[in-house]
Amino acid sequence: MSFSRDQIHNFAAGPSPLPEPVLEKAAKGLLNYDGTGIGVCELSHRGKEFKAIIEGAEANLRKLLQVPDDYAVLFSQGGGTTQFSSVFLNLLAARRLKHADETNYAPPTVDYVVTGSWSSKAYQEAVRLSIPPAPGAQPFAEPRIAATTKPAKFTTLPKADEYDFSKDAAYVYYCENETINGVEFPGPDSQSPYAFPFDRVPDGVPIVADYSSSFLSRPIPQIERHAIIYAGAQKNLGPPGVTIVIVRKDLLVDTTEAMKLGGIPAVPIQSEFKTLADNKSLYNTPPVFSIYVSALVLEYLLAERGGIAGIAEVNRAKGDALYAALDEAEAKGKLRVVVQEKDARSLMNITFVIEGEGREKEFLDGAEARGFRQLKGHRSVGGIRASLYNAVTLESVKALAEYIKAF
Amino acid sequence: MSFSRDQIHNFAAGPSPLPEPVLEKAAKGLLNYDGTGIGVCELSHRGKEFKAIIEGAEANLRKLLQVPDDYAVLFSQGGGTTQFSSVFLNLLAARRLKHADETNYAPPTVDYVVTGSWSSKAYQEAVRLSIPPAPGAQPFAEPRIAATTKPAKFTTLPKADEYDFSKDAAYVYYCENETINGVEFPGPDSQSPYAFPFDRVPDGVPIVADYSSSFLSRPIPQIERHAIIYAGAQKNLGPPGVTIVIVRKDLLVDTTEAMKLGGIPAVPIQSEFKTLADNKSLYNTPPVFSIYVSALVLEYLLAERGGIAGIAEVNRAKGDALYAALDEAEAKGKLRVVVQEKDARSLMNITFVIEGEGREKEFLDGAEARGFRQLKGHRSVGGIRASLYNAVTLESVKALAEYIKAF
Repeated sequence: MSFSRDQIHNFAAGPSPLPEPVLEKAAKGLLNYDGTGIGVCELSHRGKEFKAIIEGAEANLRKLLQVPDDYAVLFSQGGGTTQFSSVFLNLLAARRLKHADETNYAPPTVDYVVTGSWSSKAYQEAVRLSIPPAPGAQPFAEPRIAATTKPAKFTTLPKADEYDFSKDAAYVYYCENETINGVEFPGPDSQSPYAFPFDRVPDGVPIVADYSSSFLSRPIPQIERHAIIYAGAQKNLGPPGVTIVIVRKDLLVDTTEAMKLGGIPAVPIQSEFKTLADNKSLYNTPPVFSIYVSALVLEYLLAERGGIAGIAEVNRAKGDALYAALDEAEAKGKLRVVVQEKDARSLMNITFVIEGEGREKEFLDGAEARGFRQLKGHRSVGGIRASLYNAVTLESVKALAEYIKAF
Repeated sequence: MSFSRDQIHNFAAGPSPLPEPVLEKAAKGLLNYDGTGIGVCELSHRGKEFKAIIEGAEANLRKLLQVPDDYAVLFSQGGGTTQFSSVFLNLLAARRLKHADETNYAPPTVDYVVTGSWSSKAYQEAVRLSIPPAPGAQPFAEPRIAATTKPAKFTTLPKADEYDFSKDAAYVYYCENETINGVEFPGPDSQSPYAFPFDRVPDGVPIVADYSSSFLSRPIPQIERHAIIYAGAQKNLGPPGVTIVIVRKDLLVDTTEAMKLGGIPAVPIQSEFKTLADNKSLYNTPPVFSIYVSALVLEYLLAERGGIAGIAEVNRAKGDALYAALDEAEAKGKLRVVVQEKDARSLMNITFVIEGEGREKEFLDGAEARGFRQLKGHRSVGGIRASLYNAVTLESVKALAEYIKAF
């Protein structure tokens, strides 16, 4: 069977849907970029055309998220997973250089807030990279769990008084939205007890946030309180292949100098933020197509979607519509919403479990027949997951909500 | 001014031109992949559609290059530059595990053949990553230059008797084609003194080759004599963003185990070949579009270009046509071909310098007017560079040759 785009509602968890006008423009650019007679993937990444694309993308991103001037915006490769390592390596190097005079350099703590699969993986990578260079030697760092919701199977968030930050960590790390169960820190200016407790993090300790799955879905609260914010493109920005890293400029350090001081792990050159920044993200050939489509998406969000305020408003309406349908169905005993605490619920990934033997398959089959796609939960937890990224329309969400109510 | 594709001859050094039928198919897939109603960048990378794409790409790559079964084919991210680090890290880990019982583990040598800018950078990265974990401590490795043409400004290749390999290196490294000056090891079965001297590398020492810019342009000589062959996509395979790594399976090692033994640098999880292999290149979200277009190119090379033999034949004809025109013009004193030794000349990147004050600009302006694009030499050396990757047609090359003869 063959479908057209308008027959399909794509609720994929990522790679996620992209706006159709963007894809149409990208398809043309693929064959002939702006009348050059050359496709966008065939242009030099050092030529004036691509320079305009990447600089335009950076300017629009800064405008949308109000990124302050003392932050660099990097277009890196390797996905969020690569940042699990890069964040650790660069911040340990920055810490080492701050303590350059110490001959008995002590490994710093690194504090992780573990609220799901992604922050768990980030923490695990910090543990791996802390392995001492020789058995019995001093480790490179002491990873700690500052707060976790593992006992609650990652279906909620910690409350402010449940965080235990160390005094002088090299950094504090959290994941703003966990895609598998769908928990997300409450939005900007929230007074909720589940809001991320910026004021409990000791002064001067850099804060790192993995924003992969909520990036550009709404404003970033207290952006200036962060040291690093990163996000893989493949949710709200563009096709997979590029990862945005927003880094406070004082953290762009020469890792080779830090390595020479000793006490930190080796830093592959490609992981060094300073190298990327010094070369305006063109240290080597960048993923030009992913950057091009991201640039088109950013333009589209500003011109057609009312900027970040307009996007946030629609995302809120989408989330409200779907959760209302789910709560109604739950009250009738038809299903169970995974995240019960409203302030901890994600607007991007909404998860639920259909009650009753054989009913999940029935639900998915019915969904498939109505053109709803990619609704299966993550293979590690099962159930149903609807991801409502920016390119999912309110109409698609309303159609899904109606289906749930009628089911 | 606006141009159509058929008015343009693109001699870009990379990102390079792609076959038009492939781009047309990709443009359709971008909006609607195979009647799913979903674009290729919006499909789950774990779904059946993408699985078929990546598995088809691997099968066709194996067929084209006759990759033996005891090698894994990985689709990695970060470009060739990332492999400068990854090759070092994985092979040092493999070496450490081989010597797991040694309590006084000595850092191995790593032997580099330095014939241009890319192999120089790879060597520099080995030097960086060898920095000891504490001042005065044992370094992680001892990088050596086994042969270099730096005294000749990288315009030729070493002869067989100019190599000085160490007896028990962790590996030997070379770059098959250097794009900046355009030197390339003579092709398969060459009896030339410039052929890579596989038989001089001590038995059991792994051989690593950077094939980024000549990958898929002709058969790989002695593929089974290599431990690792890697290549960024953006020359003959597809859009930038994906890098193929062909690794002998015994070198897919658990780097965490090796790190615990001590004496090797920390290995970021994303750099571990075993992790990529165990997850069939889907450890995290892969660059789906670059892989998709690469899959289309591989299909096209097999179905429309007569496989690797057909490609190699056309590439030989293209190189012969252009070098003949250049040698003729050089004899008339109009220009100078950078690489004089015929056996060291690249078929992919052909470099020359126009003689006479102001004549280079005249040459480039005339070229521009005729639709020839991206002919400027690399910014580090200047001059002219024509790159003749697979998607550059014999007709384009003949047109350029005619222009040179008439200039």
